[in-house]
Amino acid sequence: MSTAQALAPELDFIFHPRSIAIAGVSAKETGAFGGGGFVSSLQEIGFRGPIFLIHPTAPAIRGLKCYPSLRDIPDDVDYVISSVNARNVPALLEDCIAKGVKVLHLFTAGFTETGDAERAKMEQALVTRARAAGIRLIGPNCMGLYVPAARLAMMGGQIAEAGPVGMVSQSGMNAGEFVRYAIPRGIRCSKVISFGNGADLKAADFFDYLTDDPETEIIVAYLEGIQDGPRLARAIRRAGAAKPLAILKSGRTEAGSRAASSHTASLAGSLQIFDGLCRQAGALRVESLEELVDVAVTFRFVKRLAGPNIVVVGGGGGASVLAADDLDAAGLKVPALLPETQEALAKVTHEAGTSVRNPIDTTSLWEEQGFESTLMPCATAPNIDALLYHTSFGGGPVARMVDARGRLTRQAEGLRRVQEESGKPVIVAIRPATEAAAFEHSLEFQEQCWRNGLATYPSIARAANALARLLEWQSLRA
Amino acid sequence: MSTAQALAPELDFIFHPRSIAIAGVSAKETGAFGGGGFVSSLQEIGFRGPIFLIHPTAPAIRGLKCYPSLRDIPDDVDYVISSVNARNVPALLEDCIAKGVKVLHLFTAGFTETGDAERAKMEQALVTRARAAGIRLIGPNCMGLYVPAARLAMMGGQIAEAGPVGMVSQSGMNAGEFVRYAIPRGIRCSKVISFGNGADLKAADFFDYLTDDPETEIIVAYLEGIQDGPRLARAIRRAGAAKPLAILKSGRTEAGSRAASSHTASLAGSLQIFDGLCRQAGALRVESLEELVDVAVTFRFVKRLAGPNIVVVGGGGGASVLAADDLDAAGLKVPALLPETQEALAKVTHEAGTSVRNPIDTTSLWEEQGFESTLMPCATAPNIDALLYHTSFGGGPVARMVDARGRLTRQAEGLRRVQEESGKPVIVAIRPATEAAAFEHSLEFQEQCWRNGLATYPSIARAANALARLLEWQSLRA
Repeated sequence: MSTAQALAPELDFIFHPRSIAIAGVSAKETGAFGGGGFVSSLQEIGFRGPIFLIHPTAPAIRGLKCYPSLRDIPDDVDYVISSVNARNVPALLEDCIAKGVKVLHLFTAGFTETGDAERAKMEQALVTRARAAGIRLIGPNCMGLYVPAARLAMMGGQIAEAGPVGMVSQSGMNAGEFVRYAIPRGIRCSKVISFGNGADLKAADFFDYLTDDPETEIIVAYLEGIQDGPRLARAIRRAGAAKPLAILKSGRTEAGSRAASSHTASLAGSLQIFDGLCRQAGALRVESLEELVDVAVTFRFVKRLAGPNIVVVGGGGGASVLAADDLDAAGLKVPALLPETQEALAKVTHEAGTSVRNPIDTTSLWEEQGFESTLMPCATAPNIDALLYHTSFGGGPVARMVDARGRLTRQAEGLRRVQEESGKPVIVAIRPATEAAAFEHSLEFQEQCWRNGLATYPSIARAANALARLLEWQSLRA
Repeated sequence: MSTAQALAPELDFIFHPRSIAIAGVSAKETGAFGGGGFVSSLQEIGFRGPIFLIHPTAPAIRGLKCYPSLRDIPDDVDYVISSVNARNVPALLEDCIAKGVKVLHLFTAGFTETGDAERAKMEQALVTRARAAGIRLIGPNCMGLYVPAARLAMMGGQIAEAGPVGMVSQSGMNAGEFVRYAIPRGIRCSKVISFGNGADLKAADFFDYLTDDPETEIIVAYLEGIQDGPRLARAIRRAGAAKPLAILKSGRTEAGSRAASSHTASLAGSLQIFDGLCRQAGALRVESLEELVDVAVTFRFVKRLAGPNIVVVGGGGGASVLAADDLDAAGLKVPALLPETQEALAKVTHEAGTSVRNPIDTTSLWEEQGFESTLMPCATAPNIDALLYHTSFGGGPVARMVDARGRLTRQAEGLRRVQEESGKPVIVAIRPATEAAAFEHSLEFQEQCWRNGLATYPSIARAANALARLLEWQSLRA
C-alpha cells in the first residue's frame, strides 16, 4: 500500500467533523473577522453538529454557550479552530491533546511567515508535539476548509450544494475568490482546502487526498511555494494522471516571490522547473485566478474539444470582428462556413446587416423562431468543432423587450438542444453588466445556461483562451 | 486655412440638430430595433426638439404624429434617420434635398458591405447626389450619434451628462459597449460617432472635428478599415499631437479581416503599418475594447505617472502575491518600502498576518482609524510613484459589516485625500461582484471613487496594464 493510499482514508475524517470548538472569539466581535467570522460562516452554511465557543469570561456569545477552556466542554470535540494569539497556541494544543481532538485548524498567524527565527521554531515545535499526539494541523495562517457536504464553510456566501471540483490553496483569500467566481458559473465543490504555511499537512497531502476522493472529479490548485519538492512532484503527477488538473503558481516574479515569502513563508522556486513538472504531469499551469476559474468551467462543461474550429454567433457586427480577432489570437480558427451551410443560413436570415460566413451576425437571432434555426446549421457544419454564442445585457435591444426573462429561458434551452443534437460543445460568452437590472438578467441567463450544461465565460477573449487551454491539456494527456 | 480647420466649423452643425425625422418606424414595432429603437433612445435622453415619424399609413406611432412623407412635415427638419430598406434610400434622399435637410444618418444597411457590386454602386451614387446637394451622410450601416449636450443618443442607457471624451467608431455596437462600460467608471462623453461604411463622412473627418472641438479633451477610436490612408494618417497625427489618443484597430487577423469586410466593407490593411503610424502620432494602439476603456480612464483620472514604482495596498495575502506578479508582468515595479516607511507603518498595524514591505496587507486597513493612516505613509514614500488599492465585495468581511455603505463613503474620501496630499495618483481596483447586493455595493463604491477623482479598474491586472500603457504613451510623446 502506497503512502498516498494509506493517507486518503486517514485524512478523510478531517473533512467530516461532528463537532467544532472555536477558540478566540471576541465577546464584542462584530462578526467580520477571526473567530467570529468562522461562527458566521458555519451558521450560515448550516453546520449540523454543535459549535462550542471558548472564552475566558463570557457566558455566551451570539447565542452560543462559552466555556472557559476546551477542557470544560462536556461533549466530544472533533475539530478546533484557533483564532487565539500565536503565543497561546501551544497551551491550546495541550488542551486539544487532553480532550482527544482530531484536527486543529490554525487560523492564527504570526509564525514562520514573519521571518522571525523564534517564530519558525515555535511552529516546528507545534508540529512535533501534534504528530506525537496524533493530532493533524491545518495551517497555521489559513482559512481552513469549505466542504459543502459536511456543511463546513470558511467564508460567507459559500453554499451547501456540493459538486465535483476540489481545490488545494495556499491562500484562504484566493480559495474564497475562486469559490465566489466559480459558483455563479455552475462550479460546485467537493472540498476546498486553504492550508497556509502547511506546517503539518502540506499541498502534497491534499493532492493525494483529492486524487483518491471519489467525490472529486476535477482538481484545481493555488500554490505559492514548493514544500518537499520530490513529494509534491509525485503527488502532482499522480493527480494529473487521474483527473483534470489546473494549477496557479504565484510568486513568479521577484516582487511576487517577496510577497509569497511574507504571506505563507513560501520559497517560490523556479517557475521553469514547475512548468516542466506540470507538462510532464499532464496538468495545466495557469496565469491568473480568473484563468483558473475559466479552465475549471471548461473541464466541467466542455470536457473535450475535437479541434480548434469555432463558429462565432451573436448580435453586433463590431463584436463579431473583435471576436474573430480574439479567437485567432488565442490560437483557434474561425473558418468560413461551407457554401451549403451559408445557403441553409440564408433561408432563415434577412438580407441587410447580416453575415452568414463566420462570424455569424444575423437579425434572425433576435426572433423567437429564428434563434435555434440559425444556430443549428452552424453547430452541425462539417468544418466546425464548437459553437460560441456571445451576448450582453443592458442598454441594448434586450432591455426593451417584452418578456425578456421568458426569452432568456427559451434561449438557454435552445442552446442546450443545439449542444445535444449537434454533439458539439456550445459555449456562451456573456459580457459584463454595468447596471443592476442587467446584472440580474445576466446572472439569471448564466444560471440557466450552466443548468442546461453549457460553459459560460465573461468575455469572448476569456472563452477563447479557455478553449485553447483545453486543446493544450488534451495534447499533454494524449 | 487648412482643410481640417475649414471642416470643423462646417461639421459642428451635425452634432446639434434642432429637429429630427425618422423614416422606417414600424407601426407594430416593439421598440427594440431599427427606427423604433432610435425613437426610444431619443425620448429616453430627452431630445429637446420635435421628433417626426414618417409612415405611409399610420396616423401616429408611440404618441408621435406620423407623416406619409418627409415632404409632408410642416416644420423644418435638420436631421433625418433612415431605417428604410436600402432600395428606398434614393427616394428618401430626394425628399431630404427637397426639404432642405442638412444631415442624413443611414442606419440602413445593405450597401457595399454585402460584397455586391450593384449595391456598392448604389452607395456611391448616394454620396455623389448628397454632395452635389450639400447634404452630409453619416453611414450607411451605422448607429449615428451620441451627443449628451444635444440630447442625442444612439442606444438606451446613454445619459445626458456630458464630459471630455470623444469617440470615433466604425461599429455602433462597439461604440455602445464602450459607453456602457465607461459610464460607471466616470467617463463622460462629448461626442460619440458610429460611422459604419463611411461613404461620405469618414474617420478622418471625425478625428479632425474632435481635434478642434473644445469640448473634447481625450479621443478614443475603434477602426476596422483604412479609408483614404494618407488623409487618415494626417488626421491621426494631428489628433495625437493635440490630445491623448487611443485607437483599437480590429481585423488584425485573417478571420477578423473577413469579418470586417462583411461588417463595414473595410479593408483592414496592415497592422504593422498602422502600428507604426500610431507610434509616430503619439497615439496608443490598444488590443481590446476593455483596454480602450481602461486607457480612457487612465487618461481621464491618472493623467500622468512619474515612474513605474507602485505600492500595492489591500486585504488578503494571496491577492497581494498575485498583485505583485501582475504588476511585474505588466512591466511595473513593486519595490520594497524603505526601512523608515516600514517603521511608520508598523506603528499603525498589528503584529500577525500583516505585511508592510510592499505589497501592504495589514489588518489596520479594516479599521475606521487605520485606513488613511496606513495609506498615507505608503503614498508619500520616496521610492513610490503611485498607490494601487484593491478590494472586492461579497462573501467576505465587508458584507457582514454594520454601516458598510458609510464605510465605503469614508474610504473613497480617504483615498481622495491621500491622492491630493501625496500628489501621487491613487488607483482603485475593484474585483467583480458575483451577487446582486455586492454588485450594488461595488457600483456605489466605484462611483464614489471616480467622483473623488480616482481611476477605477475591474482587476489589478487591468489596472497594471493601463498604468504601463500610460507610461508608454508618455514616452511616445516625450
